Amino acid sequence: MVVSRFTYTYSEAETHSFSSQFSSLTKTNIDSLKKIKHQRFGVFRVTYDLVAEEETKSWKKLINVAVSGAAGMISNHLLFKLASGEVFGANQPIALKLLGSETSFEALEGVAMELEDSLYPLLRELSIGIDPFDVFKGVEWALLIGAKPREPGMERADLLDINGQIFAEQGKALNAVASRNVKVLVVGNPCNTNALICMKNAPGIPPKNFHALTRLDENRAKCQVHILPMHNDFILSRLCIVITHLNIFFQQLALKAGVFYDKVSNVTIWGNHSTTQVPDFLNAKINGVPAKDVIKDNHWLENEFTQKVQMRGGVLIKKWGRSSAASTAVSIVDAIRSLITPTPKGDWFSSGVYTSGNPYGLAEDIVFSMPCRSEGNGDYELVKDVIIDDYLRARIKKSEDELFAEKRCVGDAYCDIMLPGEM
Amino acid sequence: MVVSRFTYTYSEAETHSFSSQFSSLTKTNIDSLKKIKHQRFGVFRVTYDLVAEEETKSWKKLINVAVSGAAGMISNHLLFKLASGEVFGANQPIALKLLGSETSFEALEGVAMELEDSLYPLLRELSIGIDPFDVFKGVEWALLIGAKPREPGMERADLLDINGQIFAEQGKALNAVASRNVKVLVVGNPCNTNALICMKNAPGIPPKNFHALTRLDENRAKCQVHILPMHNDFILSRLCIVITHLNIFFQQLALKAGVFYDKVSNVTIWGNHSTTQVPDFLNAKINGVPAKDVIKDNHWLENEFTQKVQMRGGVLIKKWGRSSAASTAVSIVDAIRSLITPTPKGDWFSSGVYTSGNPYGLAEDIVFSMPCRSEGNGDYELVKDVIIDDYLRARIKKSEDELFAEKRCVGDAYCDIMLPGEM
Repeated sequence: MVVSRFTYTYSEAETHSFSSQFSSLTKTNIDSLKKIKHQRFGVFRVTYDLVAEEETKSWKKLINVAVSGAAGMISNHLLFKLASGEVFGANQPIALKLLGSETSFEALEGVAMELEDSLYPLLRELSIGIDPFDVFKGVEWALLIGAKPREPGMERADLLDINGQIFAEQGKALNAVASRNVKVLVVGNPCNTNALICMKNAPGIPPKNFHALTRLDENRAKCQVHILPMHNDFILSRLCIVITHLNIFFQQLALKAGVFYDKVSNVTIWGNHSTTQVPDFLNAKINGVPAKDVIKDNHWLENEFTQKVQMRGGVLIKKWGRSSAASTAVSIVDAIRSLITPTPKGDWFSSGVYTSGNPYGLAEDIVFSMPCRSEGNGDYELVKDVIIDDYLRARIKKSEDELFAEKRCVGDAYCDIMLPGEM
Repeated sequence: MVVSRFTYTYSEAETHSFSSQFSSLTKTNIDSLKKIKHQRFGVFRVTYDLVAEEETKSWKKLINVAVSGAAGMISNHLLFKLASGEVFGANQPIALKLLGSETSFEALEGVAMELEDSLYPLLRELSIGIDPFDVFKGVEWALLIGAKPREPGMERADLLDINGQIFAEQGKALNAVASRNVKVLVVGNPCNTNALICMKNAPGIPPKNFHALTRLDENRAKCQVHILPMHNDFILSRLCIVITHLNIFFQQLALKAGVFYDKVSNVTIWGNHSTTQVPDFLNAKINGVPAKDVIKDNHWLENEFTQKVQMRGGVLIKKWGRSSAASTAVSIVDAIRSLITPTPKGDWFSSGVYTSGNPYGLAEDIVFSMPCRSEGNGDYELVKDVIIDDYLRARIKKSEDELFAEKRCVGDAYCDIMLPGEM
């Protein structure tokens, strides 16, 4: 088993040397800590009388949010957004339950200390631990960011298998201890397949509560549609880079394309969060008009646009030397807010969800990014009135095939598929 | 000179191969790019008609904010807060001008791309460059985060000297091209001395516009005061870590201490942002009552409290393996908001500002953290009614001495002072 699972408990006598014990935490002495339960932090947790405070009377009931991979870079952005109220609102107190690993435990303590130092009043409670059966207790949201990255010399099948074990265990843990209506957002790659495995191991939780994050892809697609610089009398995307002084002609055409931030709508990412993803320009709209009628350049849409959305992650890894953490965290915020606020009339958002019973004729029993709408209650429904032409159908088929290959690879000895992020 | 300064300019013909040129940017071919000016990014910059949009009619006039060290970890948190509206408000459009270095230029492009992918509507303009005389043009805020960290084998005097050169150049640049009322917040260490050098090189900008960040220290001090667990019948801080089930007696005492987030007030950090900083518990209040009367444990206040605030940065570096970026960014946000919103009645905040003319009898001509109030117009005034007893005076003197030593070290051949962050 990849994630060791033991429960920390402690006696009162032990608590006084708590800090010093953990500061020297290593694999060799971790057994001696088996009796110590996970740590709780939090400036505002037990130090005042919430009920007596006038300011907090309008606050909602506390929500419990678990985040895995909590010592990683994406979480390092996300946790501060969650604690600040940016995600769930300024009147929503929050308990953060951070899941780390043995090796990341000290870093996790550091994250908790930084959250304390930030003095966020909405952060009512903050605990860290390494046992999902402990950390996931009663959580209403589980943001599963941690996954094993591929190491040099590691076979693809091994990677799928290791992540399969992690997400199987986390699914079992959610099934055992989380809220019966917990919403689960899987970010760790390969996120579609990880979400499927997690779901299969949590039969007590509705399958439609599981999501794989494709919102970053949707945001990137919107960014591509937004920026339409002029080139040889037709509109061309240039990786969102706008060169200044590019002449008035460019600006006129760009203005013609409309595009205030909320004017690019109905953008779907279909399929796997990988290079086979299908950014859908057939159903996308600019200022309410089909994007194809505005852009009028099928060659660009079918080739450059699609490729740039698919490859942007890879381009960023090249520039940064690591994957994009900050914008991923922003897209997680967007994904959560899409589920807890009503979707604007006529629009939709993309999320990787369970295909069984889908209205598009897609294969059953995989997690596939599709267009969704929400009434803001945490649930979603699939959008029915979308066009799927032969071009789109053929692209979607490739992504379906890839996901079935990933599914087969879990537990398999040999596997030659290309994994997300390996472009 | 440490920061190379050359101006990118470009002809229209060059713009089409712009992206590919930059993606292969190295030190060896950088000379060939001298004619290319800095890049501009931004999803919303020129792609729509702002005036025509109903939604933006309530927006304020665009503000221009420069950030140095923009490819670094602190900026990676801060820039997204600036772009989201968290700092200057939801109706304040912003132009971000990012200053990087030759070696960080590709990472800087990556940051810009991630900001684009985040689709922040308030982010009207986004440009990157390596020449402060270019990047600082017309800026109303300059957040100077970048500084040279100490490398193995580097003498302290060398470090002060190199940073002195960086901040002298940036001061000259601000003096030459920034808004005449630009507010400058120096975060790069040693930040007090760097702020002084920057100010001295910008005679056209009021000295009171320069700040060195000590807000993270203030936040940490408040965090320490907040968490007052019970131990042997007296109140003891335990690095903000609250152990659960610590018994009802603890909770009663903690509640007795008041402490909703805004109930710890009047916390001053005096002096240098270093281990000689003086967290002031003499003037601090808990629920309007002097902290000393609530905590009633002078030994803890004079020793553990003070030491824990001073050393928290070091503890975090140990846990993380790097300095605390996220909470530093949060404290930068706090520092800016303290200047653009009126200070709550009776309270104050700490900032490293110019001592000349101070009412406390402190030495003139250094940048020293002192208690400030603001009417929310970007300016501050020093708080007059504070008590300084012999204990506080003696501690403050040590921090004064350290700052004079730092000042002497700039341009000096030998220097044996301990720099901030070296604890």
